[in-house]
Amino acid sequence: MKIIVIGSVFKDEHKEKILDIAGKIKAQVCFANTEDEVDDDFKDAEVIYGFGMGIAKTSKSLKWLSVPSAGVDYLMGEDAFANKDCILTNSAGAYGVTIAEHIIAVSLMMMRGLDHSYSEALKGNWSSPVPQKSLKDARITVLGTGDIGCEFAKRAKAFEPANITGLCRSGKCAEASFDEIYKIDELDNVLPKTDLLIMCLPGTPETENILSKERIALLPKDAYVVNVGRGSAIDEDALADSLDEKRLAGAALDVFRTEPLPTESRLWNTPNLLITPHVAGNLTLKHTLDKNVEMFCDNLLNYANSLPMKHVIDRKKGY
Amino acid sequence: MKIIVIGSVFKDEHKEKILDIAGKIKAQVCFANTEDEVDDDFKDAEVIYGFGMGIAKTSKSLKWLSVPSAGVDYLMGEDAFANKDCILTNSAGAYGVTIAEHIIAVSLMMMRGLDHSYSEALKGNWSSPVPQKSLKDARITVLGTGDIGCEFAKRAKAFEPANITGLCRSGKCAEASFDEIYKIDELDNVLPKTDLLIMCLPGTPETENILSKERIALLPKDAYVVNVGRGSAIDEDALADSLDEKRLAGAALDVFRTEPLPTESRLWNTPNLLITPHVAGNLTLKHTLDKNVEMFCDNLLNYANSLPMKHVIDRKKGY
Repeated sequence: MKIIVIGSVFKDEHKEKILDIAGKIKAQVCFANTEDEVDDDFKDAEVIYGFGMGIAKTSKSLKWLSVPSAGVDYLMGEDAFANKDCILTNSAGAYGVTIAEHIIAVSLMMMRGLDHSYSEALKGNWSSPVPQKSLKDARITVLGTGDIGCEFAKRAKAFEPANITGLCRSGKCAEASFDEIYKIDELDNVLPKTDLLIMCLPGTPETENILSKERIALLPKDAYVVNVGRGSAIDEDALADSLDEKRLAGAALDVFRTEPLPTESRLWNTPNLLITPHVAGNLTLKHTLDKNVEMFCDNLLNYANSLPMKHVIDRKKGY
Repeated sequence: MKIIVIGSVFKDEHKEKILDIAGKIKAQVCFANTEDEVDDDFKDAEVIYGFGMGIAKTSKSLKWLSVPSAGVDYLMGEDAFANKDCILTNSAGAYGVTIAEHIIAVSLMMMRGLDHSYSEALKGNWSSPVPQKSLKDARITVLGTGDIGCEFAKRAKAFEPANITGLCRSGKCAEASFDEIYKIDELDNVLPKTDLLIMCLPGTPETENILSKERIALLPKDAYVVNVGRGSAIDEDALADSLDEKRLAGAALDVFRTEPLPTESRLWNTPNLLITPHVAGNLTLKHTLDKNVEMFCDNLLNYANSLPMKHVIDRKKGY
């Protein structure tokens, strides 16, 4: 069996771990920083771990593509795989911890006015106190109760919010930190009772524009929005209008409809909008990368031994 | 009994609450935005709630000064009170929640490189990912295990750090979120095993310069420091040297030896130093202000009924 591992982020310890498993299952491994650098000998590989979208599109030999991202929306096109039976797995579960930390950080930055005092400090200004809000006693709504939503809820709970309400497709989630769990079609009823809306949804046809102009208008005017899922979930123009007109207290976006966010985007200059460049879940955090590799190795053993695999994407649902 | 309440932050609901208690104990209340605006009739008041340092210095009638701050270092001078027997109480206990949120926010901002990506975003730049650290698996040391240290530890625990070690004068603290509690003289042994040092100490002769040049050198070079106590606790020049020379990963200071931080201070331009203008515990957060007023009202009833009062400062200890 030939395996390609694509990515410049992997350290020696990760490569050794992968080689160790490969040895056990008698597989050969090609490490490449990018898809372009893959040895010709490996172009017919059976397995790819990494962003091997180009090879997936052309190789009928590929039987399993394991991507290190949680989102797989970029692989939902009809021509994404030359081999229509190719298994696709993602790395959901590796990102909960790091993205949860991001959400807490940007929520507190906005609610406590730290974005303001920090930006003034960058200019050498000792600024006056601004009004502050708190996670304590806040009504928090979490849209998407997967790994990210659950890890966030666990941490947010320690801040003693008034409640944490989760919404998901099934209306069911085992994480005890949620006070209430509803089906996603309850969203319109929950938004007016939300001080902080956390969006961590996959990019699917169902989540496209889920925070529409009409739904933004349902939020209280002192509410905050955080999006770490996919930019397609929000009507960006309606959000910017609401912030411009002070019909919303603030928003922190890590994901956008177009990334990198174009230089000419009005969002750069929208007030009370905290922009981060899709860094909530990047692999520069050692914990995230270690877990990502560990998940691939576990799944590689499952694959080689014809055992049930984890994190297999249902392409109809898109996640 | 005459009571002066000084401060522009109090809302009608707070004034009504104070007047309600005053009515029960047959006291008269004068509300003033600043000390200068106090009615002459009240200059001989028995009780002041607020920053009444000028009156305290001159009035022999004053029997109790209740300050809305947690720190009282500015009242430790020998000539601070004309009436040497004047009771001094602080508002420790009102600030734990808000300062704990500040500590978590700035720690995550630094460790996740959000200070970098946010400052780039302010300039309209979509920046590249930078190395990230996490509260998960971090070794956290908390210097000062009062209300602030405990509320921080409760929240930090949810982020699954490797450990949270508390240090305090007594070596004892009931808060279960601490994995270990030591006496403060263990500091030199704990610093080398610290990834994140949280300083929330009162300003006393014993805490003066406690984070000295020598102790800063005991921290690992990838450690972070957060100070929300008093600026006098740190050798600011040694800290800036360490940051300049990359012998420390970062620091977030909310308090300084001189406040506002002078325009010419080198700290404004020290790399990886996150400056906030003493806002961690300000009274713009409703929860903090509500609790502050509630604590004064409870103590006022105690005072009027000759019951034991809370938060009385031991002037020998300085807190």
